[in-house]
Amino acid sequence: MKIEHRAIATRHIKNTVKFTLWGRAAGRCEFEGCNKPLWKSPVTQEPVNISEHAHIYAFSEDGPRGNRGITKAKLNEIENLLLVCSDCHRKIDAQKDGGRYTVALLQQWKSTHEQRIEVVTGIVPSKRSHVLLYGANIGEHSSPLKFADAAFSLFPQRYPADDRGIDLSMIGSLQSERNPSFWKNERENLEGKFTRSVKERIALGEVDHLSVFGLAPQPLLILLGSLMIDIKHADVFQLHREPAGWAWPPSAPTVPFSVQKPSSFDGPPALVLALSATVTPDRITDVLGDNASVWTVTIPTPNNDFVKTRGQLAEFRKLVRPLLDQIKAHHGQRTPLHVFTAAPVSLSIELGRIRMPKADMPWEIYDQVGQHGFIPAITIN
Amino acid sequence: MKIEHRAIATRHIKNTVKFTLWGRAAGRCEFEGCNKPLWKSPVTQEPVNISEHAHIYAFSEDGPRGNRGITKAKLNEIENLLLVCSDCHRKIDAQKDGGRYTVALLQQWKSTHEQRIEVVTGIVPSKRSHVLLYGANIGEHSSPLKFADAAFSLFPQRYPADDRGIDLSMIGSLQSERNPSFWKNERENLEGKFTRSVKERIALGEVDHLSVFGLAPQPLLILLGSLMIDIKHADVFQLHREPAGWAWPPSAPTVPFSVQKPSSFDGPPALVLALSATVTPDRITDVLGDNASVWTVTIPTPNNDFVKTRGQLAEFRKLVRPLLDQIKAHHGQRTPLHVFTAAPVSLSIELGRIRMPKADMPWEIYDQVGQHGFIPAITIN
Repeated sequence: MKIEHRAIATRHIKNTVKFTLWGRAAGRCEFEGCNKPLWKSPVTQEPVNISEHAHIYAFSEDGPRGNRGITKAKLNEIENLLLVCSDCHRKIDAQKDGGRYTVALLQQWKSTHEQRIEVVTGIVPSKRSHVLLYGANIGEHSSPLKFADAAFSLFPQRYPADDRGIDLSMIGSLQSERNPSFWKNERENLEGKFTRSVKERIALGEVDHLSVFGLAPQPLLILLGSLMIDIKHADVFQLHREPAGWAWPPSAPTVPFSVQKPSSFDGPPALVLALSATVTPDRITDVLGDNASVWTVTIPTPNNDFVKTRGQLAEFRKLVRPLLDQIKAHHGQRTPLHVFTAAPVSLSIELGRIRMPKADMPWEIYDQVGQHGFIPAITIN
Repeated sequence: MKIEHRAIATRHIKNTVKFTLWGRAAGRCEFEGCNKPLWKSPVTQEPVNISEHAHIYAFSEDGPRGNRGITKAKLNEIENLLLVCSDCHRKIDAQKDGGRYTVALLQQWKSTHEQRIEVVTGIVPSKRSHVLLYGANIGEHSSPLKFADAAFSLFPQRYPADDRGIDLSMIGSLQSERNPSFWKNERENLEGKFTRSVKERIALGEVDHLSVFGLAPQPLLILLGSLMIDIKHADVFQLHREPAGWAWPPSAPTVPFSVQKPSSFDGPPALVLALSATVTPDRITDVLGDNASVWTVTIPTPNNDFVKTRGQLAEFRKLVRPLLDQIKAHHGQRTPLHVFTAAPVSLSIELGRIRMPKADMPWEIYDQVGQHGFIPAITIN
């Protein structure tokens, strides 16, 4: 019997037991209060394995704590092993009977350590984002947004939360902006779908973060942005022309925004975004009269492909939010602000996002319809 | 050359690399956003090693991401390996050139994951406690407190923060309580040392937690407790007779406290702790006169060895704190409360700890001097 027993009881610990013990201990000494990293020198920080395996029930019958209460087969299993540093190993095994390092105490320490490690390492910032697609007909062209293209551009900052996204588009609409009922129908569709597919799901905790892709006439993009005011965690994307796609280029020079203020504040106030194209003053006075007070946000050479970084969206928000306050201070909160935009899609959405419904002036948003010039499209009040 | 190269380039990864990778990854998939535990089945929770090793630079020249930019010798080193689950391994290696899983991205993921693990697993509640010793002569006996005995009794809840402790005792005092200057000298010593050795070190952040061991005449123990009012984290210990020592027994029955109220509230108020011994009424009326209003906290059979658990200290605090408010409500805040104690050392300290200096009545604390009965010893105002 004795010979057979010795044949079974080997000090060999399987590699997979060692691997998983390292993982569950996060490579730290499990002696309560020690927690020392065991993969590097505490003196020089050089990589070195300074771990040891302490048996809770002793390997040999007359070892510390003995081995009554465990079968031989379990002696080298993970539940009987503590990953420890050499100093703590000696303390645990210093006395013949284990002394104050009892089986129950060591089991409790192992369990507490490994539970703590599992809990704290399980907490990671979620990379899940719901892909929000919003396409509406622009002029005579429909704008089918493809989920796959949008989802691909989230990487590596975020991953799509599902494989469909949330599509707010009015599918199969044949209307164009010239049709008088276009704005009413698109607005009802957008507001209704946004409430059902976004707001209610956020309230239920199903949606934490949105990645927003819009291709639509600018008043609808501004409206979309204004619906997102309660949504703290959203990234707005821009469809780039060179290189084509929604993904942000790795790096790009930024373009400085500037603001032109009106010389007098007597006429009806207008906010003009002359960013993707220049907007000549006559285009505004044609609509508002010669005394219009025109506030213009522009860049040195307006063009449709200058938004190349997420940082530019932040700069735009930081510039325009105080500008809205300034305009209100000159013209009063009840006066309607006439909004004319020639802007990249992302900035139209961002303009809507910074609107504060209780503090800002009402907005009359115009759309540019080919040779017809600017026509009133949407009011946000 | 080719043959030699093949001889060097082996897929073998050293065990110590695998161990430390498991530790640094905390056994979780390092693909950013995955974090899956690799030591158990996600379906059944059974222990199983489901890990794989992903090479950042490919093992073979024409593998994903190739292996330009790394020496053959470093291919199987920890810096070139990600601990991953099978699903994520396939994604990383699905395309011939790695696709969007570039070397730079995978290196960043590895680094972010392992830094996060090191930081979050490094946070542990400290078990360090400063051992506070306070011994003063009791009657004709000096009370040398031994650091080693005290420190031993902290285990396993706490460990001593250093190997000396903080000793507030007046070393070599030959005075006894009968000496008129005894109280004045001991008080000055205790208050002075407490400020220098405890309060100032707490303010400097050097001391987080105190383990308090007192053996001294009861008025001085109450004074010590009253000095600790700003110290949130402290454990008070009791010197037990059976079994002898400061360590708390593993478990013990608790003894119920009871309160006896005076029949009239007209005379001078007295708080009596009749816990380690009975205190007959004449002992109080001898001092305060026949109309004394005596509030007594007692137990069924007063004795010196009934405090056996930390829980009893908490019960005592919970009983006496509202009792102090009740006494004040009857007698007024400015009236001195005469305090007579026959109590285990731990409860005398706890009585001082629950005193609220701005809200409570002044305390006149008496000491029992052999056959002389109670004599005024210390005033806390």
